[in-house]
Amino acid sequence: MFPTKKVQSMIGSRVQVEMKGDVHILEGELESVDDYLNLHLLDTVEIANGERLRSLGSVVLRGNNIILIIPVE
Amino acid sequence: MFPTKKVQSMIGSRVQVEMKGDVHILEGELESVDDYLNLHLLDTVEIANGERLRSLGSVVLRGNNIILIIPVE
Amino acid sequence: MFPTKKVQSMIGSRVQVEMKGDVHILEGELESVDDYLNLHLLDTVEIANGERLRSLGSVVLRGNNIILIIPVE
Amino acid sequence: MFPTKKVQSMIGSRVQVEMKGDVHILEGELESVDDYLNLHLLDTVEIANGERLRSLGSVVLRGNNIILIIPVE
Amino acid sequence: MFPTKKVQSMIGSRVQVEMKGDVHILEGELESVDDYLNLHLLDTVEIANGERLRSLGSVVLRGNNIILIIPVE
Amino acid sequence: MFPTKKVQSMIGSRVQVEMKGDVHILEGELESVDDYLNLHLLDTVEIANGERLRSLGSVVLRGNNIILIIPVE
Repeated sequence: MFPTKKVQSMIGSRVQVEMKGDVHILEGELESVDDYLNLHLLDTVEIANGERLRSLGSVVLRGNNIILIIPVE
Repeated sequence: MFPTKKVQSMIGSRVQVEMKGDVHILEGELESVDDYLNLHLLDTVEIANGERLRSLGSVVLRGNNIILIIPVE
Repeated sequence: MFPTKKVQSMIGSRVQVEMKGDVHILEGELESVDDYLNLHLLDTVEIANGERLRSLGSVVLRGNNIILIIPVE
Repeated sequence: MFPTKKVQSMIGSRVQVEMKGDVHILEGELESVDDYLNLHLLDTVEIANGERLRSLGSVVLRGNNIILIIPVE
Repeated sequence: MFPTKKVQSMIGSRVQVEMKGDVHILEGELESVDDYLNLHLLDTVEIANGERLRSLGSVVLRGNNIILIIPVE
Repeated sequence: MFPTKKVQSMIGSRVQVEMKGDVHILEGELESVDDYLNLHLLDTVEIANGERLRSLGSVVLRGNNIILIIPVE
C-alpha cells in the first residue's frame, strides 16, 4: 500500500501529525486527504510533552509542512 | 470535502493562518485561494500570544509556507 | 481575484515582502512576477524594525521562500 | 540505479531516515515508497544519540521533509 | 522581463546569492540557470559580513533553497 | 551546461553536499542523480569543521533539502 493510500485508509480515525514550525503535534479525526497530503482534521487538539495545549477544532494542514503522520490506536 | 475545498468554503469568512518564519499568526477575511493554498486576506492582523501585534491590511500568503488554516467562529 | 492575480495587479507599485532565512523584510518596486510568485524587484531596500538596513537595487526573489507580500500604500 | 529506485530496493528491509524538524532519526521497516519519496515505515522507533527514544509503530513520512535515507545493515 | 529571464540575463556576470541554511552569501560567475532557478556558479566565494570566508570554485545551487539573487555591479 | 547536467557530469567522482537540517556536509562518490537532484552517494562520510564525524556508507539524499553540491578535486 503506497504511503498516500495508507493515509487515506485512516479517514474517519484519529491521527497524530507532527508539523514544521512552532506547532508541536496535532491530533484529530482525519476528515479528508489529497495527493499532496494536505489534511482536513476535525476535533483537533495541539499536544506538547504528552499534554493537551489547545483545542483547535476544524483545521486544514498544508501537506508539505507535515513531517509525519501516525494512526492513534 | 477535500482539504482545498474546505478552504474554499471559508471564502468571505475570517480565518487564522499559522505561517513559517518570524510571522506568528495572521487573521483576516479570506478573499481568495488557489490550488496551491496561496491565500489573499483582507483586513489582516498579526497576532501573538492572543494579542494584536500589527495591522497589515491586504496580504498575499505563499501556500507552501502555510502550516495550518483555522476558520474563526 | 486569485492570489497570483492580486500580486500581478501590484506591478509598477512598491511592495513589502517577508522572506524566509536571515533577510527580514524587502521593499521594492515590483517589476515582474510569475506563476510561482518568483518576484523581480527594483530599488530594493532591506528593512528591519522599521529601519532601512541595506540598499540592494535589482533583486530576484525565489517564490517558495516568500512568506507574504503586502502592497505599500 | 536512480536514487528513487535505490530506495525501492530497500522495501522489506530496515532503514534509517533523518527528517527535518524536531524529530531526529527514525528507524523502521520500509513498507512502501512513492515517486516523491513519501515513505511508509513499520515498527518505527525514534533514535537520538544512538538511543531509542520512542516507539512509533506504523508511520507515514512526507518525502520533502526527508534529509537522507540509509539502509540498516 | 519575468524573474527567471532576469536571472538568465545575468549569465556570464557575477552574482550574489543568499541561501537558506548555514551558508551565508555566495558570490560567483553565473554559468547556467534552469527553470527552477538551480544555478551553476564558477569561481565561487562564500561571504559573511562583507568578508570572504571560503573559496568554493565550481558550485551547483538547488533553486528552492535560494532566497534571493542580486547582480554584482 | 545546465546545473543538473553539471551534476550528472560528476557521476563516478567524489562530491561534497551541504544539506539542510542538522547534518553538516556529506562527502561521497556520486552513484546517481535524477531531475530533482535526488542523489545516491557511496562511501559517504559526514564532515564538520573539516573533520570526519561519521561514516554513513550508501546514502540517498532528497534533492529539495540540498543547499549546494561541490565537486571534490
